[in-house]
Parts: sequence; structure tokens; C-alpha cells
Amino acid sequence: MTDLTVEVYDTTLRDGAQQEGMNLSVADKMAIAPLLDELGVGVIEGGWPGAVPKDTEFFALAGKELTFRHAQLAAFGMTRRAGATAAADPQVRALLDSEAPIITLVCKADIRHAERALRVSPDENLAMIEETFAFLTGEGRRVIMDAEHFFDGYRHDAEYSLRTLQAAVAGGADVLCLCDTNGGMLPDDVSEIVAAVGQRLDTPLGMHAHNDSGCAVANSMAAVAAGATHVQGCVNGYGERTGNADLVAVVANLEIKRGIVALKGDGLVESTRIAHAISEITNIAPFARQPYVGASAFAHKAGLHASAIRVDPDLYQHTQPEKVGNGLRMLVSDMAGRASIELKGKELGFDLAGQNELLGRVTDRVKHAEAAGYTFDAADASFELLLRSELGENPAFWDVETWRVRVASKPGDPTDADAEAVVKMRAGGERMVAVGEGNGPVNALDHALRTALAGVYPEIEEFELTDFKVRIMEASHGTDAVTRVLITTVHQETGELWRTVGVGPNVIEASWEALADSLVYGLLKAGIDRR
Amino acid sequence: MTDLTVEVYDTTLRDGAQQEGMNLSVADKMAIAPLLDELGVGVIEGGWPGAVPKDTEFFALAGKELTFRHAQLAAFGMTRRAGATAAADPQVRALLDSEAPIITLVCKADIRHAERALRVSPDENLAMIEETFAFLTGEGRRVIMDAEHFFDGYRHDAEYSLRTLQAAVAGGADVLCLCDTNGGMLPDDVSEIVAAVGQRLDTPLGMHAHNDSGCAVANSMAAVAAGATHVQGCVNGYGERTGNADLVAVVANLEIKRGIVALKGDGLVESTRIAHAISEITNIAPFARQPYVGASAFAHKAGLHASAIRVDPDLYQHTQPEKVGNGLRMLVSDMAGRASIELKGKELGFDLAGQNELLGRVTDRVKHAEAAGYTFDAADASFELLLRSELGENPAFWDVETWRVRVASKPGDPTDADAEAVVKMRAGGERMVAVGEGNGPVNALDHALRTALAGVYPEIEEFELTDFKVRIMEASHGTDAVTRVLITTVHQETGELWRTVGVGPNVIEASWEALADSLVYGLLKAGIDRR
Repeated sequence: MTDLTVEVYDTTLRDGAQQEGMNLSVADKMAIAPLLDELGVGVIEGGWPGAVPKDTEFFALAGKELTFRHAQLAAFGMTRRAGATAAADPQVRALLDSEAPIITLVCKADIRHAERALRVSPDENLAMIEETFAFLTGEGRRVIMDAEHFFDGYRHDAEYSLRTLQAAVAGGADVLCLCDTNGGMLPDDVSEIVAAVGQRLDTPLGMHAHNDSGCAVANSMAAVAAGATHVQGCVNGYGERTGNADLVAVVANLEIKRGIVALKGDGLVESTRIAHAISEITNIAPFARQPYVGASAFAHKAGLHASAIRVDPDLYQHTQPEKVGNGLRMLVSDMAGRASIELKGKELGFDLAGQNELLGRVTDRVKHAEAAGYTFDAADASFELLLRSELGENPAFWDVETWRVRVASKPGDPTDADAEAVVKMRAGGERMVAVGEGNGPVNALDHALRTALAGVYPEIEEFELTDFKVRIMEASHGTDAVTRVLITTVHQETGELWRTVGVGPNVIEASWEALADSLVYGLLKAGIDRR
Repeated sequence: MTDLTVEVYDTTLRDGAQQEGMNLSVADKMAIAPLLDELGVGVIEGGWPGAVPKDTEFFALAGKELTFRHAQLAAFGMTRRAGATAAADPQVRALLDSEAPIITLVCKADIRHAERALRVSPDENLAMIEETFAFLTGEGRRVIMDAEHFFDGYRHDAEYSLRTLQAAVAGGADVLCLCDTNGGMLPDDVSEIVAAVGQRLDTPLGMHAHNDSGCAVANSMAAVAAGATHVQGCVNGYGERTGNADLVAVVANLEIKRGIVALKGDGLVESTRIAHAISEITNIAPFARQPYVGASAFAHKAGLHASAIRVDPDLYQHTQPEKVGNGLRMLVSDMAGRASIELKGKELGFDLAGQNELLGRVTDRVKHAEAAGYTFDAADASFELLLRSELGENPAFWDVETWRVRVASKPGDPTDADAEAVVKMRAGGERMVAVGEGNGPVNALDHALRTALAGVYPEIEEFELTDFKVRIMEASHGTDAVTRVLITTVHQETGELWRTVGVGPNVIEASWEALADSLVYGLLKAGIDRR
């Protein structure tokens, strides 16, 4: 370990959300922020209050409801408008109103962008930077500069780009974060320019890298080696175009390979779980080959050297996967699981300590189920049902005889279709036959199931299906692909939320399982007995 | 441009195939190799003949059937066994028998791996290296060294690792490729070690990087900056664990950012199409954020600066996307398309030159369809049907009245299901009602459709559905997710293969479209008229 410390600044909620296909709600941001704090980042950039209404709402809600152990919130915004004062600029005022202790100001650090995009004179741009910093630091906030397009600007007109940094310093900037906004730099370029800037200025430097050349992680490392003490990035490398620097990879490289203290606390050992949990919230499929935390990151195809890997794994891996909460994978049976099952049970209120035979059975069922495509990380309710069934605590609320779904083209339009489902079951001592319609087969099944049960278990009318995700799991090792369905259900009165998972050869069978389990779990939690 | 030239060595077919979930058939390899040649790589590593039976078959078939414009084939193998001669080692002989002009020998370059994995003495390992090289170069082959675990070995015992390189040089090695087999190096490490080796040896050096630290591309660039003149990698960054260096990103960085000649020919401008075509063969979903060639690589979320981007795109992108055959994306209507539609038409035998009004209509339909989830790159047959329909050349072989699919749980087992489909249509002047069964809804629909048509169009019995891929397209901008189905059909007699695409709100509607189009296309190609 060296004495060097680097500040980790996460921008998943702001720059990461620029990714194509990502659309974070306020609730998503409220769910992601505590995970970032658990990871141990120093700063969580929450969005652009004032410019984006849901970001204004996020800061208001986060200020009331979230308490962080490690992180501080940062509000992102722009320098003041041309020709006005910072104090009178509503966009600048909104940054203060957000009550974030840190404000990050994006500044044009490339003379061409000042002139052509902002359409202001080079001197006015400098005045906008200095005055906005001076106003906000005068209000007692810590203010960070995002020097946009700095590297491209420096190559075009180094002196002007340096003057933008000096303007921020004159206004009291705490960190000058140099941004490779277009992502085209290579590590050599970054090293050279960061070192040159460091010789001219004493204010701490930061790095904000994008991955357009495939070098975002390396560029972040190069900047730190050249003197930067602040790095920005996004979990899972989210971001516009090719994404921002993958924050976990940068942090793991800094801590594991260079002995630099980056995270607060010891969240690195939880980073695989945290990265996956965030991908379930963003509903962006995790990338199996992602460094450190990917499902394949420490997966070895069993080959000639299988026994050597098992005896001497350190010869075949660049670091110990446990350091990032990941695991060496070769055979499913190689993955130990009892301890984590015991912990998971404890979380859910089941004391399983010492019940080795039971833990063994549950571990085996989880292993087999996950190999078949289930994922309990994202479906705690399904895990609890599995655990309860091994404990003999799962009441059979009903018995299903048969179900069927019909999808048919609409009369007169063979290119458009309607769906209808029929469920036959016994509940409360009676036989029920119910039909449901829908815009697709799953929707129709859900309606039929609820109609059949509403008489005996009216409580289910409170359970609302709020999210439905389908993923085709790639076939591996010559087996057929399977479909996985994740369903989120919310209790309309209590607000309690639960997730269930189903897996099957097609979306209909997988959905049936997840739907039925969501109702069973809801009834159990409501304390209902079999009727 | 500098005078520097770097040899590009592709190992997609060997090391790339180690990726979890990838399983390349001989036919897959035969389809990928010409695409690599078109890209312009210098060497295509085809596999390990002798050790892997389908690789032996690939070399035999490729020698007969493939002619490359640029590339040469390399066979990968090991040094001779301990305690025997190279000439008598069947594994070494199989490398010669492959008739590949280049042979790449993996050698233990880390003393710990020689002793613990290979279980031979350090001196025997050196003898195995030198003698195997001497034997194969004596047979007139160009032989390349893959110095496995070189970087880890060098850090542990630099002198021994250097002696393994010297042994290869003594045996006549043409290139010493230094492998970061565990993928844990950072660019600083690579620069230092490659430069140090270059000071001790005159033989050209190469770099083989893995992405475990997220630095494979940067490490390849660092090695070239430090003197390496040969780089290995895989298209799309395929490979075990986190993958190998992404070959296209490395090549684009070398050529565009450093002015180094890497590819033979001008295949870089085709690299986006080639990378995507390879991902269709491997059936590994392309990664949208992949540098240079990803679908999102040059996609900008329209925001405050949309107009500035349009006027001055070079201020907002690190390079021109056209250099890699990709395109700036902001609004669908921003993507020019007439020229490519004209070219695509020409490929399919339609002369559309000068037909501007028609080209405009087809371009619009393609744009709208791709925005809705279709992909014509992977479904030429569907594109041809679209083009023919604009040309008024699509005969209506049949009229569909209605279709329906039923999925129902099996009697006695509500967790298992069966599928049945009914199709009602008119063909050959008659009304047909046909039923089909299957293990899933799509399979049942396919059977019903064929049964209905077999009397009037018996030719369709020759069309075999050989592949069926489903992808859920992520919702973007608040719209619902859609399902895309790609179907591959083969004519059993002629061997002709075609692909069709269908898109719909669920897998059943999407499949219906792709199935029906596959039959229409097959009939058209067979020269059948409407009956």
C-alpha cells in the first residue's frame, strides 16, 4: 500500500443515464444511490436539478430519505448564462436549492466549443467560469470543475484550455476534472497532458474518461499515474456511445494492482453483487465478459489443465476473485454456497445456523436451479418460497388442474393478434374455471388466474404486477436456450414490493411459474392461511 | 502515416472460441474465415489440428475450399512432449499435416508453469522449445512463438522467461509473441517489459492481451509503442473469461490514431458490417457499447446540442464513424441510406441505379422497420421481399384468414405444457384448414402452416427450418420492448440458405411473420408462380 488516496466520483445517475436505452425513474435512482454508498464511492452525482425535473425531485427526496455512510451527493450543472450574473441565473440557483453539498460545474474547456456550441467569446466563457465558481463557493459549497472536451481542446489550443482551468481556480474550484468527452484519447496522450497540466497548476486534478477507443479504464489509470487524485466513472461502464470508464474496474485496478486507497470502507468485496443489483434496476443485461464482476470474469473452460487450475488457481488468474466478490468457476459443484445460503436466510428472518443437512439441500436446489436459468439474486421472494418448501412451511393455497393460453390473429387482420387464457383449479374447497383476456399471452394468463382466485382470496386484488422482464438465456454447451421471466409485484396498500422468477422452454411456461409464485408469496406475507 | 507496419494476427477461431457459451462448428469457422480475410488480417489462426478433431477437419476443408486475398492460415499447437523427439510427436506431426503455412507454438514462458503444470525441468522445457522450433522451421514453415504467461513469468524470474525466448530464437522463431495469459497487466507494466525484452533480443516481438484488467486494447497499443510489430486479438473481443483484445479496436487505434499500417487492403471501412456478421454466426448478441463498431458507438442522445452536433459533428466524435463503416446516429432520418440500398440491391441482382424515387421509398421503409426492431443485415431474404414488394414483384402465394396457437398444461401436470396451432387460409383456389402440434407455440405454427400448404406447394417440403433465434429488444425512450425472431431456412436439395426476420409484441406474432416470409422467399427462389 502506498499513502496515495484517490477520490472516487460516481456519475452513474447522471452521465451513465445518457446510455442508449436507459431511462432511470426517481425510484430507480433512489434504489441505486444506497448501493453506490455501500460500494464506498466518495461522491454520488445525482443529476442536474433545475434542468431535469425528475432530478430536482430526486435531490428533494434523497435529502429527506437517504442517509449515506460514505458518500456525499453532487449536483451537476452549467456555468451561468452569458451576459448575466450567476446569482440571478435560475439554473445556478437550482443547484443551490438542491442542497447538495457538492456542485459540479461543466465548463467549456475547448475554445471551439465556447465559440461554436456556446456561441460566446473566449473571454466571456472565462468570466462565466470564474464568476459561477466564485458565487457557489461563496455560498459554502464544495465546487468541482468538469473541464469538458479538455483533451481535444488542449491539443488544439493548450493555452486557452489552461486558462479555463485557471478561471475555475480563481473562483475557488476544489478539483479540476479533465474530461475526455469524446473518448478518443489513448493512455500515452492522457499521461502526457495530465503531467503537463500538473506542472502548471497546484489544484487537485481529476479524470473523466469515455471508452470510445476502448481505453477508458487504462486512461483513468494513466491519469492517476500522472498525478490525478480524483476519478469519475459509472458502474458497469454505462454511458453515452461506448460508455464511461467502468468504475469498478478502475477502483479494483487502483486498489488491487497499485495499492492506492480509493473506496471508503471495504465495499470492493461486495462489488460483484452491487454491480449485478444495479443492472437489475436499470434492466440492462449484465455483460458476462465485464472485467472483475462479469459472470465469465473468472470462468475457466475445463480443459487440459483443469486439475492444475484447481490445485494452483493463482497461476491461472490475475487476482483472487474473492477480492471483488466474484468466484472461480469451472464446474458448478466447485462453487461453495452453504455460508451464503445461511446469510441469505438470516436476512429473510430464518435462523438456519447449524442446520447442515437442510443447508445442504437448499444449496443443492439453488445450484441446480441457477444452472437451469433461475436467478435468486434478483428474486428474493422465489428464494424464500424455495427455502420454505424445504422447511415444509409452504401451504398449498390451491391446486391447479390445467391452464391454457390461446393467441389468435384478429378476424380480418391475420397480422394482428389477441390473447385469451383459461385456468381450471381448486381453491377453498371449490372448483374454479376462469377466463382472462389480454394484449399478449402472459397478460391473459394473469387475468385468468386472478379471476379464478378472487372469490376465495380477495386479498390478491391488492397485489399489482408492476414490472415484467423477459430474457432469453443463451444456450451453452449444446443445450437449448431457456426463457427467464422476472416479475415485480407491489402491495397497493402497504407498498411492499417482491420479485419472483420463472424459467421454462418458452415465455408462457416461464411466466406461469413467476405469476403463480408472486401470488403465493403475497398471501404468505399477508399472513393468510389456506382456505 | 509513419512507415511502421504491424502484423495483425486473428485468433477468433481458436482463442476466441474459448469464450463461455461459444461453440463453433466447422461450418461456422468456414463462414468466419473469409470475413476475417475481407477485414484484411495478416494471419488467421484456425485452431489446433491433431488435438481437436473439428479443427483437423477445418484445416483440411479450408485448404481445399478457401482462397484468401490477404490472410495466411496458422495452426496452433504445443511444443513436443518431454523426453521424445519433435519428429516423433504425433501432435507436432499433425501441425505439419494441417499444411498451414504458419505454425504457432505455445511455450511455457513462466518457470512455475513449466515445473507445476507441465511437470518438466526448466532445462527440458527449453530443449522442448528449441527442438520443436528447429524441426518445424526445418520443414520450411514460418513458426511463431506464443510465450504463454510471459509477463507473470518475467516478474517472477525474468532471466528464465528470457531464456525461453532465446530457445525459440535458436530454433528459428520468426516472431516472439509475449502473452499476458491471465490478463492482469496494466499498460505501464507492458511498456516496461516489452521495452526491456526488445533491448535483449532482435527477433520481432508480438503482443497477446486478455482483458481481465479492462486494459487489453491499451496493453496492445502500449506494446506497439514499446516496439512490438505483431498483435493478436479476436473480433468482438471474444475469448475466455473477459475475452481477448478486441481486434477491430486495436487495429482502428493503430491506423486512425497512430498512422500505423496494420490491415492489408482497406477492410477497416467494412469492419462494422464484418463484426456484426461474425456475431450472427457465433450467435453471441453484439455488445452495443463496443468501441468503433457497436450500435451505440456513435449514437448521440438528442439533447441541448443536437443542432451543434449536426452542423459540426467532428467536435462531438473522436473519429469519423465512416472510417470503420459505422454511422453517426441521432435521429433515424439522419442516417443516409440510398447509396447502401442501391449497393445491397445490386448484390441481390436488382439494378436500381438512377431510380431515385424507388430508392427513397425503400430507404424509408428500411429505416422505419429497423427503428421498429427489424435487422436486415442478418436477414437478406426479408430485405429482398421488401424490395420486391416496392417493385411490385411479390406474388401473393396465399391469403391467410386466421391463425391461432394454444399452449396448455398437460393433463395431470400443470407445470408442463403442449402446443397446438390452427391455420386457416386460401391457396390454389381452395380453402385450407390445418392443425399442427409442437413442443412450443412456434414449432406448432410451423407445422400447421406447412400442412396447409403442402398440397398446393409441395416444394416447401424441401425447405428445412435449421435455426431459430429470439431476441428481446430493449425498450428505449419509454416504448414497450419488442421481440425479434430470426429464422434460417435451408433448401434440402440445393443447399441454398436464407434468413428471414419477424418483429412483434410477442414471440408468437414475430415468429409468424418470419415463418411465412421464409416460405414465400423459398418459393420465389425456386421460380414457382402463384397457383
